[in-house]
Amino acid sequence: MSKNKRLRAALNDGTLFTAMAAHNPLVAKLAEQAGFGGIWGSGFELSASYAVPDANILSMSTHLEMMRAVAATVSIPLIADIDTGFGNAVNVSYIVPQYEAAGASAIVMEDKTFPKDTSLRAEGRQELVRIEEFQGKVAAAVEARTDKDFVVVARVEALIAGQGQEEAIRRGQAYVEAGADAILIHSKQKTPDEILSFIQAWSGKVPLVLVPTAYPQLTEADIAALGKVGIVIYGNHAIRAAAGAMRKVFEQIRRDGGIANVDKEIPAVADIIGLQGDKYMRELEARFLR
Amino acid sequence: MSKNKRLRAALNDGTLFTAMAAHNPLVAKLAEQAGFGGIWGSGFELSASYAVPDANILSMSTHLEMMRAVAATVSIPLIADIDTGFGNAVNVSYIVPQYEAAGASAIVMEDKTFPKDTSLRAEGRQELVRIEEFQGKVAAAVEARTDKDFVVVARVEALIAGQGQEEAIRRGQAYVEAGADAILIHSKQKTPDEILSFIQAWSGKVPLVLVPTAYPQLTEADIAALGKVGIVIYGNHAIRAAAGAMRKVFEQIRRDGGIANVDKEIPAVADIIGLQGDKYMRELEARFLR
Amino acid sequence: MSKNKRLRAALNDGTLFTAMAAHNPLVAKLAEQAGFGGIWGSGFELSASYAVPDANILSMSTHLEMMRAVAATVSIPLIADIDTGFGNAVNVSYIVPQYEAAGASAIVMEDKTFPKDTSLRAEGRQELVRIEEFQGKVAAAVEARTDKDFVVVARVEALIAGQGQEEAIRRGQAYVEAGADAILIHSKQKTPDEILSFIQAWSGKVPLVLVPTAYPQLTEADIAALGKVGIVIYGNHAIRAAAGAMRKVFEQIRRDGGIANVDKEIPAVADIIGLQGDKYMRELEARFLR
Amino acid sequence: MSKNKRLRAALNDGTLFTAMAAHNPLVAKLAEQAGFGGIWGSGFELSASYAVPDANILSMSTHLEMMRAVAATVSIPLIADIDTGFGNAVNVSYIVPQYEAAGASAIVMEDKTFPKDTSLRAEGRQELVRIEEFQGKVAAAVEARTDKDFVVVARVEALIAGQGQEEAIRRGQAYVEAGADAILIHSKQKTPDEILSFIQAWSGKVPLVLVPTAYPQLTEADIAALGKVGIVIYGNHAIRAAAGAMRKVFEQIRRDGGIANVDKEIPAVADIIGLQGDKYMRELEARFLR
Repeated sequence: MSKNKRLRAALNDGTLFTAMAAHNPLVAKLAEQAGFGGIWGSGFELSASYAVPDANILSMSTHLEMMRAVAATVSIPLIADIDTGFGNAVNVSYIVPQYEAAGASAIVMEDKTFPKDTSLRAEGRQELVRIEEFQGKVAAAVEARTDKDFVVVARVEALIAGQGQEEAIRRGQAYVEAGADAILIHSKQKTPDEILSFIQAWSGKVPLVLVPTAYPQLTEADIAALGKVGIVIYGNHAIRAAAGAMRKVFEQIRRDGGIANVDKEIPAVADIIGLQGDKYMRELEARFLR
Repeated sequence: MSKNKRLRAALNDGTLFTAMAAHNPLVAKLAEQAGFGGIWGSGFELSASYAVPDANILSMSTHLEMMRAVAATVSIPLIADIDTGFGNAVNVSYIVPQYEAAGASAIVMEDKTFPKDTSLRAEGRQELVRIEEFQGKVAAAVEARTDKDFVVVARVEALIAGQGQEEAIRRGQAYVEAGADAILIHSKQKTPDEILSFIQAWSGKVPLVLVPTAYPQLTEADIAALGKVGIVIYGNHAIRAAAGAMRKVFEQIRRDGGIANVDKEIPAVADIIGLQGDKYMRELEARFLR
Repeated sequence: MSKNKRLRAALNDGTLFTAMAAHNPLVAKLAEQAGFGGIWGSGFELSASYAVPDANILSMSTHLEMMRAVAATVSIPLIADIDTGFGNAVNVSYIVPQYEAAGASAIVMEDKTFPKDTSLRAEGRQELVRIEEFQGKVAAAVEARTDKDFVVVARVEALIAGQGQEEAIRRGQAYVEAGADAILIHSKQKTPDEILSFIQAWSGKVPLVLVPTAYPQLTEADIAALGKVGIVIYGNHAIRAAAGAMRKVFEQIRRDGGIANVDKEIPAVADIIGLQGDKYMRELEARFLR
Repeated sequence: MSKNKRLRAALNDGTLFTAMAAHNPLVAKLAEQAGFGGIWGSGFELSASYAVPDANILSMSTHLEMMRAVAATVSIPLIADIDTGFGNAVNVSYIVPQYEAAGASAIVMEDKTFPKDTSLRAEGRQELVRIEEFQGKVAAAVEARTDKDFVVVARVEALIAGQGQEEAIRRGQAYVEAGADAILIHSKQKTPDEILSFIQAWSGKVPLVLVPTAYPQLTEADIAALGKVGIVIYGNHAIRAAAGAMRKVFEQIRRDGGIANVDKEIPAVADIIGLQGDKYMRELEARFLR
């Protein structure tokens, strides 16, 4: 079964699908090995790995190329974060087939203006486009896909923008009408109350997607019990784990004036070589280097 | 003083210059903050981050673009790992100006055949090119640079290839004759004996560069005391630290069925946003968004 | 004298500087050989070479990489077409140093909304941003350059958008106040009347830039005589010449069922090999292949 | 029927399939409109468009990205020129799936050493790899494809390297044994005698591919009559036509000091806008911009 079909099936089978953010193929491989259902091709993580704000500073090409590399590395579905669609509905029409060809099984597109600002930034600039405009973008995405199983997720930023639950529900329903396969509802409140309230009020006929960065206390079991959520995305834990560990190791090397102490605490070079597919390469060498 | 001049000066001032491997700009920024003197634009780390072997599977473009992004992010010098030079001496002539324009302050080129195999791989394929051929490549690199302070390092793989100290010394001296500014001598022995023996025997007029991955017990103080080494490169500790931490966090999330526990152990989102240059972006917004 | 200084000097020395559009380095080389003063890094031509509309369908990366390749190929200054700046003033702040590092000597930025539509498209969508907003973008570009000789050109699309001469003059002057080094005034009228009227009314203290695609009858001598124009850009004649010739040759080969007839009408392979720098490569081979 | 299936069928149906070189998507679109059966993703043309020698100066990424753009633009099959495979058989194993994913329907790989030199260069460096080594590369390519209809063409350079017909036949047969779907036999003799002699002697069970640049007098009718040739590739006529026309137009503009005269001789801007897919974009706008 293709990755697209598997994601499509998972979205609607009543169980919770989990996706971990990745900013490069190695991260994706580690997430696959750990047992996540899919990969979140996070714009935030990729921007962070380039040390620039998650505000459309990186171009679409940089993101698309990374998606291609990630999709080629793992056998679990990739959900690509295309921010606001890198322009208007016409841009979306041109972009979606490129993400499909890159091996993504889904795109998530949010209803903010271009250039976006990251949703979790304190005092960030959070401006929404008109509902009709975003419906056009969703419809363009749906129409542009070549495989019907490719999933189009509309991301509602009304709560992030402080416009309240009623507006969030209105937008979610409008995007479903335009053809969205799922609605990602985002909140930066530090408790799950706002999200739980939205979920309770949601009567749309498509599943929801959550990104519980701000309210980590909500477990997968809690979410699954709500019954309306198809996917939970962990949006930034890879880059946070990596940055924290590298900072610690770097500081210790500087303190120690050497690597003897850190060497024992981090994976061996052979471990990394294994992750790079050494076994596969050895087989290729044995068969084809003559 | 330009980055190139600073690296050139550091190479020859009798102190030891330290460089940490980076596979993306965020890693480089963390290394700069920790106090390393420079960045090692490691082919091994970049390949590992793409989950492919360090065997010229990635194209030069992928490496060059990452070097450009890294150099634009940090204010410390970048030493670019160009493997075997991506071809013959003609290729080197075309490539060096591109690395210079990308913001690197040095290149390190090794005397193996193309495609290379990673030096630390057990039972790897380690073939050296003829001395004269590699002298031509070194001479081409030296001639191709536009800034005389751009540093050309020749990497001797004779010890890695099991050809012994005499051959290593002969090659090192031949490359100095061809114009190399420094000699990187690489060893995969698990004690520093082989390297120490080489250093003792080295009477070349340029400084040496070490990569003590295999013999971590050799400290910077030890190396500085030897008097002939200009640069120590830590070649893979960033990706090892990152991979180890992500694996651990991913496994815990899967065990927990949620992120509540890991959330406390990893840097906050705001910390990452800070590393992305949030302060600079806020200033830009205040000044120019009208 | 650097390319930037040469362009800066040419802009203000009272003579007319000519720039030819290029969509790849070979085009730029041919333009240099023909005697043009500089290269126009045209978004229209690059989009056309990819067979997509000039409406921000290509990403910034694609354009930036081509600019880098062009700048590395010719010794005459490159004026980069950055459309509307690929976002808001913050994006401009991040982008300008990248174009500078890519070897461009100038950027031209237009005062339309993102995504743009090509100015010469019949019934195209031509929306302008507020004057203050674009002043912020111009100021951001001026502030972001690292070399004071790097030229920032503001492109006024008020005539294209049908908003009349008064609005065009008002915008031109506002952009000069914000720091623009020159004003590109664009018109799609099929006679030069509209442009001549604007030039007569222009009392700004910076030179003007013209793109006479729509009114080809206006010669360089005519323009020079006006005294206020620093640069004339030929915006699309390379791709038009190339497309016309390829179409003709392709059709003849299909008609002939072979290449014997076209072979005599097109440059020999050796001619192309010469343009590829065969002489330089032979010298490199002789010196460095040992 | 997929592009791959169509090319596979055409290769074996007894008729002659024609492919025109393209160095960008616009060229490919013009070739498709003119009636060619497929596109030749020429390394020579792409290198020429970058004004660098066809000697692996461009990286694989640059070529691969252009192939992706070309394949997305036309509905006829794309035959990708991968030179010598960018390394050894291991590299080939990694590369073939990338070309397949990029939308190519075939690769052509030649039996020279890396870095290659262009076959038509006078006094070029033409070194062949051992037969067994190249068999390994062919086998690796065949094994690496995911679609059995993806065509693997082995290119024999023995005649180019001056090693005579016997060696050329021996190599062709060896590559067929290794799994090649077709053999491209290349000659730079200015008459078709050498090629005709090879074809006569060829008793291999797969079709041949010709590139009659050097012997243009051989028509498609002539070739079809030989009965053993499946594909004829016109390897460089697009860039030659384009370069010749641009040079002429550029020179005339400089002579005239204006564009009035050339404007009548080249396609109108509206013609180019049509080639850019203006009609499709208008439809998208009408449907999705709300």
